[in-house]
Amino acid sequence: MVTKFISKRNLEFLLYEVFDAESLTQFKYYQEHNRKIFDMVLSAASKLAENLLYPIFEEMDRNQPELIDGQVKVHPTVKIILREFGNGGWIASRASFEKDGEQLPHLIADVCDFIFQAANYSAATYAGLTSGASHLIESFADTELNNIYVPKMRAGKWQGTMALTEPEAGSSLSDVATQAEPVDQDYYLIKGQKIFISAGDHDCAENIVHLMLAKIKGAPAGAKGISLFIIPKKRVAEDGKLVDNDVMTSGIYHKLGYRGCPIAQLSLGDNNNCRGWLVGKPHNGLKYMFQMMNEARIGVGLGATAMATAAYYTALEYTKTRCQGRKISQKDPAQPQIPIIEHADVKRMLLFQRAIAEGSLSLILQCSKYVDLVKVLPDEEKEKYHLLLELLTPIAKSYPSEMGIQAISQGLQCLGGSGYCDDYALEQYYRDCRIHPIHEGTTAIQGMDLLGRKVVMQKGRAIMLYANELGKTIKAANKFSELEKPADQLAKALADLQKVTQHLLGVAQTKGPEYFLADATLYLEFFGIIAIAWQWLVQGITAQKALNGNEKDVDRIFYQGKLFTLKYFYGYELPKIMALAKCLMENDGLTVEMTTELF
Amino acid sequence: MVTKFISKRNLEFLLYEVFDAESLTQFKYYQEHNRKIFDMVLSAASKLAENLLYPIFEEMDRNQPELIDGQVKVHPTVKIILREFGNGGWIASRASFEKDGEQLPHLIADVCDFIFQAANYSAATYAGLTSGASHLIESFADTELNNIYVPKMRAGKWQGTMALTEPEAGSSLSDVATQAEPVDQDYYLIKGQKIFISAGDHDCAENIVHLMLAKIKGAPAGAKGISLFIIPKKRVAEDGKLVDNDVMTSGIYHKLGYRGCPIAQLSLGDNNNCRGWLVGKPHNGLKYMFQMMNEARIGVGLGATAMATAAYYTALEYTKTRCQGRKISQKDPAQPQIPIIEHADVKRMLLFQRAIAEGSLSLILQCSKYVDLVKVLPDEEKEKYHLLLELLTPIAKSYPSEMGIQAISQGLQCLGGSGYCDDYALEQYYRDCRIHPIHEGTTAIQGMDLLGRKVVMQKGRAIMLYANELGKTIKAANKFSELEKPADQLAKALADLQKVTQHLLGVAQTKGPEYFLADATLYLEFFGIIAIAWQWLVQGITAQKALNGNEKDVDRIFYQGKLFTLKYFYGYELPKIMALAKCLMENDGLTVEMTTELF
Repeated sequence: MVTKFISKRNLEFLLYEVFDAESLTQFKYYQEHNRKIFDMVLSAASKLAENLLYPIFEEMDRNQPELIDGQVKVHPTVKIILREFGNGGWIASRASFEKDGEQLPHLIADVCDFIFQAANYSAATYAGLTSGASHLIESFADTELNNIYVPKMRAGKWQGTMALTEPEAGSSLSDVATQAEPVDQDYYLIKGQKIFISAGDHDCAENIVHLMLAKIKGAPAGAKGISLFIIPKKRVAEDGKLVDNDVMTSGIYHKLGYRGCPIAQLSLGDNNNCRGWLVGKPHNGLKYMFQMMNEARIGVGLGATAMATAAYYTALEYTKTRCQGRKISQKDPAQPQIPIIEHADVKRMLLFQRAIAEGSLSLILQCSKYVDLVKVLPDEEKEKYHLLLELLTPIAKSYPSEMGIQAISQGLQCLGGSGYCDDYALEQYYRDCRIHPIHEGTTAIQGMDLLGRKVVMQKGRAIMLYANELGKTIKAANKFSELEKPADQLAKALADLQKVTQHLLGVAQTKGPEYFLADATLYLEFFGIIAIAWQWLVQGITAQKALNGNEKDVDRIFYQGKLFTLKYFYGYELPKIMALAKCLMENDGLTVEMTTELF
Repeated sequence: MVTKFISKRNLEFLLYEVFDAESLTQFKYYQEHNRKIFDMVLSAASKLAENLLYPIFEEMDRNQPELIDGQVKVHPTVKIILREFGNGGWIASRASFEKDGEQLPHLIADVCDFIFQAANYSAATYAGLTSGASHLIESFADTELNNIYVPKMRAGKWQGTMALTEPEAGSSLSDVATQAEPVDQDYYLIKGQKIFISAGDHDCAENIVHLMLAKIKGAPAGAKGISLFIIPKKRVAEDGKLVDNDVMTSGIYHKLGYRGCPIAQLSLGDNNNCRGWLVGKPHNGLKYMFQMMNEARIGVGLGATAMATAAYYTALEYTKTRCQGRKISQKDPAQPQIPIIEHADVKRMLLFQRAIAEGSLSLILQCSKYVDLVKVLPDEEKEKYHLLLELLTPIAKSYPSEMGIQAISQGLQCLGGSGYCDDYALEQYYRDCRIHPIHEGTTAIQGMDLLGRKVVMQKGRAIMLYANELGKTIKAANKFSELEKPADQLAKALADLQKVTQHLLGVAQTKGPEYFLADATLYLEFFGIIAIAWQWLVQGITAQKALNGNEKDVDRIFYQGKLFTLKYFYGYELPKIMALAKCLMENDGLTVEMTTELF
């Protein structure tokens, strides 16, 4: 029996009741779809997750990838997974019909990814990376390159990767040193080192296609000189056969978690025979890569949310069956012990996990809907959603990543000593989830992106649009007497957000960028809590509306549970912004001024 | 070369400048000691840690204990460690001269344990448990039992354990089901199961001595029927030889971390031949065990602090040498990259770790000093320190345990992708430290202990004494203009503590114990932050005083670093009490009222 790792009811609630996925089918681009198709797709995704991914979740962790004779060996089921994902159209779920894709709304495709990631994050990564890489080729590479790579990747035969990090260029991408030398051919000769490349090599795909950042010889220094290349492990020779492309796997890392997927170290051009094909124009690589990176960032947030969700259901199941202790007011040792879920503190820990997981998912699906709207709306209308998406991407990446760790840790705590042992999955989730605040831009990088770029872009237009969205939600909530209190709290939080933002913009003016951005990570956290509070109110409106109608009992329980979790978030999580606001308002530059020698 | 895992300068600061360890030698009990002896002891502890414990820190993790043919095999160096700890007097460091101990002040002995735990927590556990168990025998068992067990244990030949947990009795100790049947001899026949017993079996000691809770047949139900027994793995036969005592190791757990020390499952009396010897009086077991448990709780806090300290120094070293990026105001890619410690956000993460680690250590040594004062002061004076110790024990256990996880996680974050890989120790610390909020009473249990017992005992006398201590610190700090601001903040925090406590006592009156204790864990966190703020001000006074004198440059840097970290704690951590106070004051019983079906 598969342990529950997601709630189908909650997915339906978010997709159909909160974000009205069906409404997307009124647009031409999505008109071939309908609710029935969506349901079939979701059901197929669930089956795949239950039958193929979840059963090897622990096995992939216990049997880590190995590097043997220059070849990374992974769990053999990865081959089946990639093929199934290829054949089932999952790698091309968001691609257009024209490109042999499924042309699914992002809302639906993202929920499918969520299901896959909740079942087995490592296993889902192979297809996810391939999907992102193929989309990048489709978007910016010429037809010839498209024809060589995209069909093979979307069939699950060739693995895609994003190869950015180098030994001396991690967070500082502008320091990429991999070189591309023009050789009067349609390709360049590549030389360099890449590290931490997820799925960077393995034996379950016929080829590995790296979407790689490198610098063309003589390019300008820094980020402006970065170009994007396709660098396959094996290139297609004139006779159509695959031949070695001088990409060597020089190592794999032994990781805390996320062990089902190898992270490789690559050495390119050791024999001066590594060919790379330029994608798009020279020196535009970072701009192109940001498309994939933005998708990947939301993907990381989604993965973190998925793990937190799976961990929550594992913990929930345990607390319902494990008996220990008695009610505080009923200590008679002759009475039987009670399920620990009946203890208030255990309920608090469960509510915390649920509030994080379901709040994060709501925010991410809000972003998914924006992606869809950007796709289907006319130019003049789409700009708004584009800006909101830009603003919320660092939040959608970092809030689930950071808080997912806390949520999973609380899940582990629910199991006590058993949570610390590998008889239960919690310890694995605790290890797996720690990658999220690191990969695809650390939390600090997200903070800088939010405050240093997104908040200030177009004279603060994005944050103004965001305030409008929150205002609309507050207004809608105020129609329900039950929601007046949280609506009021959100209005106050929004005012705090505006005050703190204004204050920091003032700091930028008076004290310069170092001071302005010193606590960008705290600002990110502050912003994130308010964003999740917003999403809880969005969900609350739908739930309250449904409760006021005449719903079935089982649905009433679902909606009441939602409203309790909303109250939890507003009672226990939202107040954390008070401390953050104080800290951000009264920041006196401590971390700028403390010198290294004082540590 | 051994990586730095503690700061000797900080230990000297706390021992001699803040807590004036030398002043203890004015009391008769400690009069044989002096500063020179203390320094020699600390130096010997450091050598042992550096030469014996630290070198196998990773090795013990990578080579977990195994259960082979009913015998647990651990790293062979454990045998040498136990002997060295026995011969060096470390297991008997706190025992009196009369009992062949070293009669060291707890302040000094606890710092030695801290050094051992920072070097290798798992390795230090074997001796630590043996020390606690032998102290328990010494305190409550008769002379004959003392003579049989204590010398062997203190020589490091026999391992001591505390055996409380059972499959159906974890947090709910009153449900202990292991039975002791009187048989008209000096012993009882024991039957039962114990789980999660640290060092519960291994092949590096000649014998394992379990200090075990069990119920004598016909004993009252619940906690009032629990007795304490010595149950050795091998008992001493009439001819003086060790014979099997029917204690079987039925399993060991595979754990997330803390892997150098086995956690065993024991089956007692499968062949009706397991003998146990009663310690003290029947049905008084829990009271006796609480002596060991209170010591063990502070010991867990100390261990958590030690790990956070070691992790901090590992992260610090990395951030000083790893170059990445440039100053925000200086983005020229032609300039060399800078050590990441120069980025404000990295400094913030380091300050966080340091504030947690050094603040926690200060609180624990404050408790150590109270233990010493209770030992040496006349009855009428000692009561105060006894009560303060009782009050602060749950904080000293839980704050470092919970916040140590956060601190280590931030340490890991400082290393980025490298922190997630096992080339650095951070990932191991992250796994190891997760045990602390679980063992020796979960955080929830500590919260109930604090609010449900310690705050209300003797009509709130302990918390009144505590408020006096904080008041004294505030007054002393106000003599320094540089400390007026934090002194004022602490005074406000203390007022908040009193207000929240009064409020909750009111809830107890009006709504009963379920509501009163529903958020005891949050109260614990709230109380803990204020306690650490207090300790930072205590340290700040010493540092400021020293700075106002004429200290050497190297010392000035140390004291300035202390004051920056104090400012960090007051600027970034203390404000967190605002959210907690709001939550505790406005708690409307959400977690009591939410029913299981709503999850």
